[in-house]
Amino acid sequence: MKTVLTYGTFDLFHIGHVRLLKRLRAMGDRLVVGCSSDEFNNSKGKKSIFSYEERAEILSSSKYVDLVFPEHTWDQKAKDIQDNQVSIFAMGDDWSGKFDHLSNLTEVYYLPRTEGISTTDIKSVLTNVQEQKILQIKNTLITLNQLVEKFG
Amino acid sequence: MKTVLTYGTFDLFHIGHVRLLKRLRAMGDRLVVGCSSDEFNNSKGKKSIFSYEERAEILSSSKYVDLVFPEHTWDQKAKDIQDNQVSIFAMGDDWSGKFDHLSNLTEVYYLPRTEGISTTDIKSVLTNVQEQKILQIKNTLITLNQLVEKFG
Repeated sequence: MKTVLTYGTFDLFHIGHVRLLKRLRAMGDRLVVGCSSDEFNNSKGKKSIFSYEERAEILSSSKYVDLVFPEHTWDQKAKDIQDNQVSIFAMGDDWSGKFDHLSNLTEVYYLPRTEGISTTDIKSVLTNVQEQKILQIKNTLITLNQLVEKFG
Repeated sequence: MKTVLTYGTFDLFHIGHVRLLKRLRAMGDRLVVGCSSDEFNNSKGKKSIFSYEERAEILSSSKYVDLVFPEHTWDQKAKDIQDNQVSIFAMGDDWSGKFDHLSNLTEVYYLPRTEGISTTDIKSVLTNVQEQKILQIKNTLITLNQLVEKFG
């Protein structure tokens, strides 16, 4: 029984998450996921759209995920690896090199992320229309400011 | 073998979708989902953030979903019910009464939706900050317009 471990926030569950989980699960027989708690995210200055309970529930409903537990601190990984008898620790390659110190406990891998998709991208698409509106209003504002300077 | 059938766009996959799929799957032994194609959504004036292929892939990765196929038209349901030997046809209760005519082919149910969560809600949260920015700029614009009227 080869257990794979990963960590993440998994906010706004998207196709990049699904493909990452699928690849991780295929590396072993069992995938356990440490899902960042809201308190942990707060301490990093991050705020997710969905709560820990909601993100953990979506993760648990994935065909590729066998167990979800909360990630509360940076330094719980060694204990998580031992508790879950983890053979492979794997993260997206945006974390490349960051967890090499765990290689005395388990195999450490960094996987390439799905091209062109991230939670940040989704937020961008959704706010793009609004940003354009803002730009349009700002341009009008500049023109009006020039008028005010001239006549005020 | 009791097969349950539902339809939807399932854009921005969220906790409301997961809970609906879980309830649907629990009504039978097998859940098949008709996922609206991009062309079908276009014909309804709807545009999803994610493509059909992406939405179908996320749906297929759910523990509660056994089969996903594209929904191309309003009138394919009778054929889908026969092709998949469907016993139960179920939709969210925002569709209440709309599919009663299918009850000569299968059992028809309308399920209550998860309180306070929808794709539209998520889009709202994400755009709220931008809307506030727009409001702020608009208010400045009104003041400036009054100045221009006075001095222009």
